[in-house]
Amino acid sequence: MTDVDRIISSGRILLMDADQTIIENGSIAIDGQDIAAVGGKDDIESRYTAPDIIDAKGGIVMPGLINGHTHAAMTCFRGIADDLQLMDWLNNYIFPAEAKNVNPELAYWGSLLACAEMIKSGTTTFCDMYIFEEETAKAVKQAGMRCLLGEVLFDFPSPNFKTPDEGLAYAESLLKTWAGDDLINIIVEPHALYTCSEPLLLSAKALADRYNAPLGIHLLENQAEKLQLEGKFGKSAVSFLQDIGLLTDKFIAFHCVCMDDDEISLFADHGCKVIHNPESNMKLSSGVAPVPEMIARGVCVGLGTDGCASNNNLDMFQEMDSAAKLHKVHRLDPTVMDAKTTLEAATREGARALGLDHLVGEIRPGKKADIIIIDIHKPHLTPMYHEYSHLVYAVDGADVDTVVINGQVVMKNRRLLTLDENQIMQKVHDISNRIKAGMENI
Amino acid sequence: MTDVDRIISSGRILLMDADQTIIENGSIAIDGQDIAAVGGKDDIESRYTAPDIIDAKGGIVMPGLINGHTHAAMTCFRGIADDLQLMDWLNNYIFPAEAKNVNPELAYWGSLLACAEMIKSGTTTFCDMYIFEEETAKAVKQAGMRCLLGEVLFDFPSPNFKTPDEGLAYAESLLKTWAGDDLINIIVEPHALYTCSEPLLLSAKALADRYNAPLGIHLLENQAEKLQLEGKFGKSAVSFLQDIGLLTDKFIAFHCVCMDDDEISLFADHGCKVIHNPESNMKLSSGVAPVPEMIARGVCVGLGTDGCASNNNLDMFQEMDSAAKLHKVHRLDPTVMDAKTTLEAATREGARALGLDHLVGEIRPGKKADIIIIDIHKPHLTPMYHEYSHLVYAVDGADVDTVVINGQVVMKNRRLLTLDENQIMQKVHDISNRIKAGMENI
Repeated sequence: MTDVDRIISSGRILLMDADQTIIENGSIAIDGQDIAAVGGKDDIESRYTAPDIIDAKGGIVMPGLINGHTHAAMTCFRGIADDLQLMDWLNNYIFPAEAKNVNPELAYWGSLLACAEMIKSGTTTFCDMYIFEEETAKAVKQAGMRCLLGEVLFDFPSPNFKTPDEGLAYAESLLKTWAGDDLINIIVEPHALYTCSEPLLLSAKALADRYNAPLGIHLLENQAEKLQLEGKFGKSAVSFLQDIGLLTDKFIAFHCVCMDDDEISLFADHGCKVIHNPESNMKLSSGVAPVPEMIARGVCVGLGTDGCASNNNLDMFQEMDSAAKLHKVHRLDPTVMDAKTTLEAATREGARALGLDHLVGEIRPGKKADIIIIDIHKPHLTPMYHEYSHLVYAVDGADVDTVVINGQVVMKNRRLLTLDENQIMQKVHDISNRIKAGMENI
Repeated sequence: MTDVDRIISSGRILLMDADQTIIENGSIAIDGQDIAAVGGKDDIESRYTAPDIIDAKGGIVMPGLINGHTHAAMTCFRGIADDLQLMDWLNNYIFPAEAKNVNPELAYWGSLLACAEMIKSGTTTFCDMYIFEEETAKAVKQAGMRCLLGEVLFDFPSPNFKTPDEGLAYAESLLKTWAGDDLINIIVEPHALYTCSEPLLLSAKALADRYNAPLGIHLLENQAEKLQLEGKFGKSAVSFLQDIGLLTDKFIAFHCVCMDDDEISLFADHGCKVIHNPESNMKLSSGVAPVPEMIARGVCVGLGTDGCASNNNLDMFQEMDSAAKLHKVHRLDPTVMDAKTTLEAATREGARALGLDHLVGEIRPGKKADIIIIDIHKPHLTPMYHEYSHLVYAVDGADVDTVVINGQVVMKNRRLLTLDENQIMQKVHDISNRIKAGMENI
C-alpha cells in the first residue's frame, strides 16, 4: 500500500481524455499537488491509503473547468449597465466607472469575489486580463486557484500606469515575481488592435518571448471593429498580425467573432488559440463566432465567460449551455457544438488553449489534481442518461459540491475553505456603494 | 390590527406592476389564498399580525414565475437524446420512447418531479401539454402548484386514447373534474396543425368554447413546418386558423418561431397569445421567434421552457437569461428584450398569456399569494445595482429560497414542504432504468 494525501472515492469519474473514458465507480489517489492514480475504486483503494477520503458516491467527478477569458475584478461592476448599445455602454458607463473607481483595493476584493464565485461554480483555472493584476495574483494565491493572468496594456493611461512603457514594466514585474509559481502563470496582454499601437504590440511580443510567456489580446469582437481595423491596416486584422510576427502557437485571441475563412486558416497554420465567450457576445450583440468552423479547421478553442459587466456571472456550466445552443440555432443545425465538443472546450481544449495542458484539463496520473465533484442527487438532474449531455444542458454551477485545486480542497460540501465569503461580499458591497455614490455625482 | 395567516417581512419587493414599483423594505400580508396588503414594512406590520412571519430580509420578493409551456412528465426523458436533427430526434428517440414507456405511472411521477424542480427554481404556475394529464393534475394538487393543463390531442392514437374522439372525451372529463378548482385550470390542446385534422381542430375549439376554456397549440416551430403547412393549406398557417375561426383572445400558440408580419398582425388583431421557448428553439435549431416584433405590435408574449427532452431543465431564470441574450445577438441590437421586458414575459405578461392574470403575475392586494423569495447573499449575486438586471442575467433557479403558492408555503429555505423529493427521484430513477433497458432491446 502506498500512502497518499487524499483519495476521492466511489465517484462516476469522467477523465475527459480523448477516448471519453468514464469510470462508473472509480477513485482517484492524490499525492501532494498531483494525481497519483485513477481507476476503479477497488483497484485504487487496494493500492493506496490516505488520511483524507472524500466520498464522491453518487456524484460526477471531473476535471475542474477552465474559464479562458475574464476580467475578475469586474465583479464589482456586475450589472452596472445593461441592454445598451456597445459604445454607449463602454463610453458612458464602464470606462467612466473604471476610471473613477479602479484601484488596488477594488482589484483585490473584486478578484477575491470572482475566485469565490468561480470555485463555487466549478472553475479551477482562469485566464484574467485587467488592471492592478498583482492584486489579482494575491487574491488567486489566497483562494488557492490556478490562473494565467496579465496586466491589460494600451496606448493611453490606465488607473495603474501613465505610459505604455510603465505598463510593460509592470507586466515584466509580474513575470519576474511569479516565475516558477505553482499556481500563478503570467501572460502578456495588449488590450486590442484598436487600443494598442504597433510599437506597443511589438514590445509586448518581445517581452512575452523573453520570458517564454503567451501573448493574449481581444480580437475581432464585432463587425465595427473588423471594419475599423481593415480601414486602419489596409488588410485584414489577422494578416496584419501575421505581418508583424505575432501569430504563433502561444498567441491567444479572445472573442474572434468576425473572423473570415482566410483568417481562420492563418490561425490554423500558426497554431494560434481562440477563447470563445458566447454569453458576452450575445449580451453585447457582438455576433456569433465561427467556432464550429474553427474547430473543424483544427484551431484550438477554449471557452470563457468574459467579465461580469457583460454576462453577468462567471458560471462556466451556464456558459457551456449557451455555447452549445447558440451555434445550433445560428446554423439551424442541432448537430454542431455537441455536448462532447462543448465540454472539451471547457476542460482539455481550454487547458491547451492557455498552454496549461501539461498541468490540467484531464484526470490523468501526473497531472495536477484540479478536480470537481458534482452532486447530481437533485430533481433537475434526475434521471441521467448521458453524463456529457447532463453537464452541458442540465447542470448548473450551484450543483458543484466539492472542489480540489492543486491537491488542496478549496471547497467541501459548498463551503469555501480558503476564503471568507461573507467578508468578501461585505467589502465588495461597500465598494459598490462608493461606485453608486460616484455615479450619482456625475 | 387585522389578523392574517402570514406575513412576508422586510424584503425588497418587486410588485411587477406596470410602474415597475420596488419597495425597498416591504412586507406582504397574506390572508388565506390571497394577498391582503403590500407596502412598507412599518405600515404593513402596524396594521396586520400573523402567526407565521417569513423573514425576507436581504432577499428579493417577487411574483412566482410562470412557465408558459412545458411537458412536465418528460422529465423522465431528460437528456435521453441530444445534438440530433429534429426528425431523427423525434422519430428515432422521443416518439419510440414515449410509445413504449408513457403510462399513468410515468405521467404521475414525472409530473411530480417536474413540480419539485419548478418549485425549487421559483416557478409557481405552469402550462402543461402531455399524455394522461389527469395524473399531472393529481401531481400538481399534491405539490400545491398552480397549473393550466390539457391532454394533447392528435389524429393518431396516443398511449391514452385510440381515437380523437376518445381524446376529446378525456379532455372534457378534465374540464368537468377540475371545474372551479383553486389551482388546476384546464386548456384544450390539439398538438399541432401537422398532426390534427380540421375536424379535430374544430371539435377541440367547440369543446373549449363550451367550457369557456382557452385553446393551445404548437405552431410554426420551424421553417419545415411552415413550408409543409403552406403546401397543405395553400395559405399561411395563421390565415388558415383565422378562416376556421380559431383566432381569439383565448388562443395560445406555443413557439411561433416562423411567423411573418402578416401572421403577427392577425395575432395582434385577434388578441391571440404566444409562448416563447428560446432554449428549446435553440437546442433543436428551430430558429429565433420574432418576439420583439410581436411585443411591438401588441401581441402578449409569455415565456416557457418546453419539455425536459429539449432544454434540458425547467429553470425559468436560465430561460430568461437565454431569451434576453438570444434576441440581442440575433438582431445585433443589445437594446431588444431588455431585462424589464424579459422579466415581464415570465410574470405579468406570462399570466396574461395564459388567461390567469386575474389571479397571478403581480404582487397586488386581491391577487393570489404566489410569491417567491430569492436569496441574494451569494458571491455570484454581489454586488447588486439593478434588481431586474440581476434577476435576468445573474440569478439562477438555485437562488430561490422560499416559495408560497396560493397562500401556502411549499418551499422554505430550499426544503420542499409538500413533496418528498427523495422518494420522487427514486421512483423516476427506477422508471428511467426501465426506459434504458427498453432502448437496449430495440
